[in-house]
Amino acid sequence: MYEKKTAMRRTEIDTLGEFGLIKALTKDIKLINGSTSKGVGDDAAVLNYGKKQTLVTTDLLLEGIHFDLMYVPLKHLGYKSAVVNFSDIYAMNGQPKQITVSLGISKRFSVEDIQAFYDGVYLACEVYGVDVVGGDTSASLTGLTVSITCIGECDKDKIVYRSGAKENDLICVSGDLGAAYMGLQLLEREKAIYDGKDDFNPDFSGKEYLLERQLKPEARKDIIALLAEKGIVPSSMIDVSDGLSSDIKHICDQSKVGCRIFEERLPIDYQTAMMAEQFNMNVTTVALNGGEDYELLFTVPLHLHDKVSQIKGVHIVGHITKEEYGQVLEARDGSELQLKAQGWNSLEEKK
Amino acid sequence: MYEKKTAMRRTEIDTLGEFGLIKALTKDIKLINGSTSKGVGDDAAVLNYGKKQTLVTTDLLLEGIHFDLMYVPLKHLGYKSAVVNFSDIYAMNGQPKQITVSLGISKRFSVEDIQAFYDGVYLACEVYGVDVVGGDTSASLTGLTVSITCIGECDKDKIVYRSGAKENDLICVSGDLGAAYMGLQLLEREKAIYDGKDDFNPDFSGKEYLLERQLKPEARKDIIALLAEKGIVPSSMIDVSDGLSSDIKHICDQSKVGCRIFEERLPIDYQTAMMAEQFNMNVTTVALNGGEDYELLFTVPLHLHDKVSQIKGVHIVGHITKEEYGQVLEARDGSELQLKAQGWNSLEEKK
Repeated sequence: MYEKKTAMRRTEIDTLGEFGLIKALTKDIKLINGSTSKGVGDDAAVLNYGKKQTLVTTDLLLEGIHFDLMYVPLKHLGYKSAVVNFSDIYAMNGQPKQITVSLGISKRFSVEDIQAFYDGVYLACEVYGVDVVGGDTSASLTGLTVSITCIGECDKDKIVYRSGAKENDLICVSGDLGAAYMGLQLLEREKAIYDGKDDFNPDFSGKEYLLERQLKPEARKDIIALLAEKGIVPSSMIDVSDGLSSDIKHICDQSKVGCRIFEERLPIDYQTAMMAEQFNMNVTTVALNGGEDYELLFTVPLHLHDKVSQIKGVHIVGHITKEEYGQVLEARDGSELQLKAQGWNSLEEKK
Repeated sequence: MYEKKTAMRRTEIDTLGEFGLIKALTKDIKLINGSTSKGVGDDAAVLNYGKKQTLVTTDLLLEGIHFDLMYVPLKHLGYKSAVVNFSDIYAMNGQPKQITVSLGISKRFSVEDIQAFYDGVYLACEVYGVDVVGGDTSASLTGLTVSITCIGECDKDKIVYRSGAKENDLICVSGDLGAAYMGLQLLEREKAIYDGKDDFNPDFSGKEYLLERQLKPEARKDIIALLAEKGIVPSSMIDVSDGLSSDIKHICDQSKVGCRIFEERLPIDYQTAMMAEQFNMNVTTVALNGGEDYELLFTVPLHLHDKVSQIKGVHIVGHITKEEYGQVLEARDGSELQLKAQGWNSLEEKK
């Protein structure tokens, strides 16, 4: 994962020009979705949605803010850039179908670099069944800029908004929380130790899961499929990108409800816990505020308790309350803390 | 247009935070299109397209590459950023309906600055009947990054691609060419003269059209409406963003045809001609390669000659030939030049 740069062919982007670069990057695209009438190569892509509703989401990723190419290989960055957009479509209970990929590229990057980025995008698209249908490439004065827009579809009566949570609904989250954040801490630490040394060889054994969660996150297409299989349409849903405490706030605000989250119910992988211990960090804070988990956070009516409990990888972490009760974390010792109150957002400020 | 910065309220973006900024920027959005089921505020927007085809286009604009805030007011930048995307949808013979707006913002910008940008976006959306349905805002280490994606619709049998031009088709262009480029030259010259002087007061009288074409371009919604009114569906179409010689090349390449453009037919405003003279530039080169005109370049079958000639603001500038004849400019003196051949793309390299 932490690849050393080896000698590689380097083609200056100037030698291809913008149109040549686009041609090189898009020549192998095979369209897979019936709803894609026309992809790359005209002023706009043409999509054909019959009775389905169309979903649109977009993300802007900037070098130095969202990623550090010191430890993120470009192929991983391409994969992750695509996947985080798919995650937003799944969070509506939809299926991602098309993406556009725009890049701002400084002179530091070669055609091979950009091809590596696209290889990651294409791999993600293959895994998730999505077509690349357009984009824009441009010179940039500084660093790499990535902008991805994803279009998806969903039956009208199956779309899940942030605004549908009701009192007594169960709050569920898939997978585990905080690992991507600890992966980032680990990479940042090794980067500081590295400091340009030639013989640097970081040891990540036993921490592979944390790195994978940071460098190659997956969107929870599987959970959406399992919910559909069980006939469950959540009352509200969001993906955990900013951290559970920030994302449950969106659901509470838009649904005009409160929530009670139980600290002891938070799903945390043992690698996350061990690494938090090493870094002298509170693992609950990490799980609540770390972000970039790309897990699904959703609510279901109480009567679906048994059904939702059966879904592998889904954890019930709390329940929805009246709005006036606020957004509460019940700690292991039974004490109550306001989510996002002093102490619980310190980590976010640090980001 | 060339506004001097006056004393204004400055709110640091940090005081609002990302969510506060988004809220401030989107609180006044009123949705106007029936196809917009749900706009800003969830993981993705929800669009409802029945029998129409959906069009998608995207543009990435970077400070220092695509715009210079020394002479482009932020409101104008917002307007232009939206309009250039609408232009791509019109170039498919479609109607723009929704956009997403993503911004990367450095500390140099205040909330008022970003609001000014959005005011321009909203104004463009009002003029063209488009809904803002989502986006992303992010910190940026350097300057302003703008990424806009536009979604539009069109009846399936009315979509116009770049690939449909046939031998003997007439080549038409709306409006006039080269003015936006001369406007840019003018602004660049004044910027060089300005050089930080306090009492600088550039005189742009008699050159307003050039500035307007550069700073506040319009997309040719009117031409699309006029074509529809006359029952004309062009055989191919593109918008002139890189310059006619580059854009007709896209049509020729994708349609597998050649073209013959007549120098004397190129529509050029007198302000463009005068300014080119002042700058000692060949006005034909400017018209062919200047770019940013956002006019429509399209082809129609020969039998529509009379009909298309009646459309105000549309000029027939040449015709489509067999592919083996190449892409030819017939100069005023009858000599032939290959479009994009040596000498004709010097300007593009300079850009």
